[in-house]
Amino acid sequence: MSDFSPSLTELRTAVDAELRRFLDGKFDAVPDAAELIDEIARLVSAGGKRLRPAFCYWGFRAAGGRHGPEIVRAAASLELLHTFAIVHDDIMDGSDERRGEPTVHVRHGLGFGLLAGDLALVLADALFFSAGFPPSISLRAFGAYSLMRLEVIAGQHLDVRHAPSTEISEQEARHIAVLKSGRYSIQKPLVIGALLADAPDELVAGLSAFGDPLGEAFQLRDDLLGSFGNRSSLGKPVDSDIREGKRNVLFAATARLLTGSDRELFVDRWGRREALSDDEVQQLRDLVERSGARAVAEDMLQARAEEAARAIAGLDVDHQARVALRALAHEATDREI
Amino acid sequence: MSDFSPSLTELRTAVDAELRRFLDGKFDAVPDAAELIDEIARLVSAGGKRLRPAFCYWGFRAAGGRHGPEIVRAAASLELLHTFAIVHDDIMDGSDERRGEPTVHVRHGLGFGLLAGDLALVLADALFFSAGFPPSISLRAFGAYSLMRLEVIAGQHLDVRHAPSTEISEQEARHIAVLKSGRYSIQKPLVIGALLADAPDELVAGLSAFGDPLGEAFQLRDDLLGSFGNRSSLGKPVDSDIREGKRNVLFAATARLLTGSDRELFVDRWGRREALSDDEVQQLRDLVERSGARAVAEDMLQARAEEAARAIAGLDVDHQARVALRALAHEATDREI
Repeated sequence: MSDFSPSLTELRTAVDAELRRFLDGKFDAVPDAAELIDEIARLVSAGGKRLRPAFCYWGFRAAGGRHGPEIVRAAASLELLHTFAIVHDDIMDGSDERRGEPTVHVRHGLGFGLLAGDLALVLADALFFSAGFPPSISLRAFGAYSLMRLEVIAGQHLDVRHAPSTEISEQEARHIAVLKSGRYSIQKPLVIGALLADAPDELVAGLSAFGDPLGEAFQLRDDLLGSFGNRSSLGKPVDSDIREGKRNVLFAATARLLTGSDRELFVDRWGRREALSDDEVQQLRDLVERSGARAVAEDMLQARAEEAARAIAGLDVDHQARVALRALAHEATDREI
Repeated sequence: MSDFSPSLTELRTAVDAELRRFLDGKFDAVPDAAELIDEIARLVSAGGKRLRPAFCYWGFRAAGGRHGPEIVRAAASLELLHTFAIVHDDIMDGSDERRGEPTVHVRHGLGFGLLAGDLALVLADALFFSAGFPPSISLRAFGAYSLMRLEVIAGQHLDVRHAPSTEISEQEARHIAVLKSGRYSIQKPLVIGALLADAPDELVAGLSAFGDPLGEAFQLRDDLLGSFGNRSSLGKPVDSDIREGKRNVLFAATARLLTGSDRELFVDRWGRREALSDDEVQQLRDLVERSGARAVAEDMLQARAEEAARAIAGLDVDHQARVALRALAHEATDREI
């Protein structure tokens, strides 16, 4: 293949340029939404590795698609969709900080945050459909795009529903994580990219078999970072999952593994937000560690990452695509915390 | 024309059957979202005249499209989109009641309401794209659908931004109403329908010239009902606009026309929610009447309805479509309050 193969940094630059161009054009189309568009542009430029666009791009390339502005635009739409997801999630989770900045609803109020999320959602599919693919190709890929949105909303719903409960199994916690984050961050972007290159069903299934375990590993890393990360790599307070009381695998495994007064203290305090002192947060972190739950999550992450590595080894894709997908897999599960 | 021409009631029945069929199918696709889908189904079946689907349907017929399940499904998607709009609006406006029932966020909490709205939004376009039109036709019509969503969000944003302000001109209030409700309820549904029948630009422009003033008249009626209606026709407390302090044309005109202590009292009390006694609400209603603002709004409604009637008279459409569009115009602006 003689196709140009952008590095992750080059791809991010290209995606960001398309996002800027697209958002700039929307000021004229709906001038009354200028403040909302401004805020979305600020959020988009506030950081992020553009992993979702990168998986979409390389799903496309793996299926034989050639580098060009069409796939960069379609991939960029996933970043706008992600902006929707984080703005609305931050409202539901009552999060005050994101990527080191106050969240949108804290900055501008509930109504503004709600509308900024709504707008990002509808701008995302406007960008997707204006990417430049033939209508029949766009609509086939949109089937996966549409299902991805349904799943992320369903996952967030389960998350909200479980929030007040102390009884959640590791299986349930993993299921929520897969819906909320894994599929939406990795498997579906890969599939959407492949469908935009008119991939046969077999390749789509192969990419799913790679993306599914990788997505789960990605979410497990996020959970580990949310309790054991450092602030600079996280962009949000490192104790946020503990203070917000995330019902993730770490919580479920710790609650299962602890007994007696340790368990009581753990489930009672996990999620007590500002009522927790820093020492109490550290105590909860120690309980996750000491119970063996941290090791459970790390082993699971390792197993899923290996499963993904086996799947990519068996995929019938060209050398460039395989190298790029391996690099992305590493980026998504890099356990440096 | 020998085409079957459903009455508004027959069309509503057909639209409702497609909505039920579509939502039933989604339980299997995303079982984890079942509670959200249930709530959306409940809201959809709670009432409404299906005016937006009817305008879409008759825009299609006016452009020469033939009766069939495809256009009924595409039209039904506008009802799901409307469900999104009302659920999120009710959160932003802090409304407790809608169509005689507690609003979603009051019933199930903020997170649930937010997600139910998000889900209705993405289900709406899933239904739109699965209606059965050729991809290129669907995507052309989706251009108008997409702009409609941007406009309704922009309108709601202006509404939220103006909410705390007493300084809003009638022109601004009308502009918000056009964005928030008029275009989205009437003009865009007509245009979307016409585009689904592959209408030429000239007919699209003609339908817009009918739908634009009609949409404004429709919103003015809604404003009049929101202050002077009776509960049974409104499905929400008849004093809701007054208690919530809507910055609509009635408010802007009353604030302009009153002077001295009347004006002070009016702008001070409008929007004081539960702090207002029933007598005080009646006093505000009397001020709107006495200032002449009610007559301003009624005259404006009349003028817009007449403008729409002139536009339909000049439209090159067949007899059945003209009769149906006239009946819909009457339905949308019927001033019986």
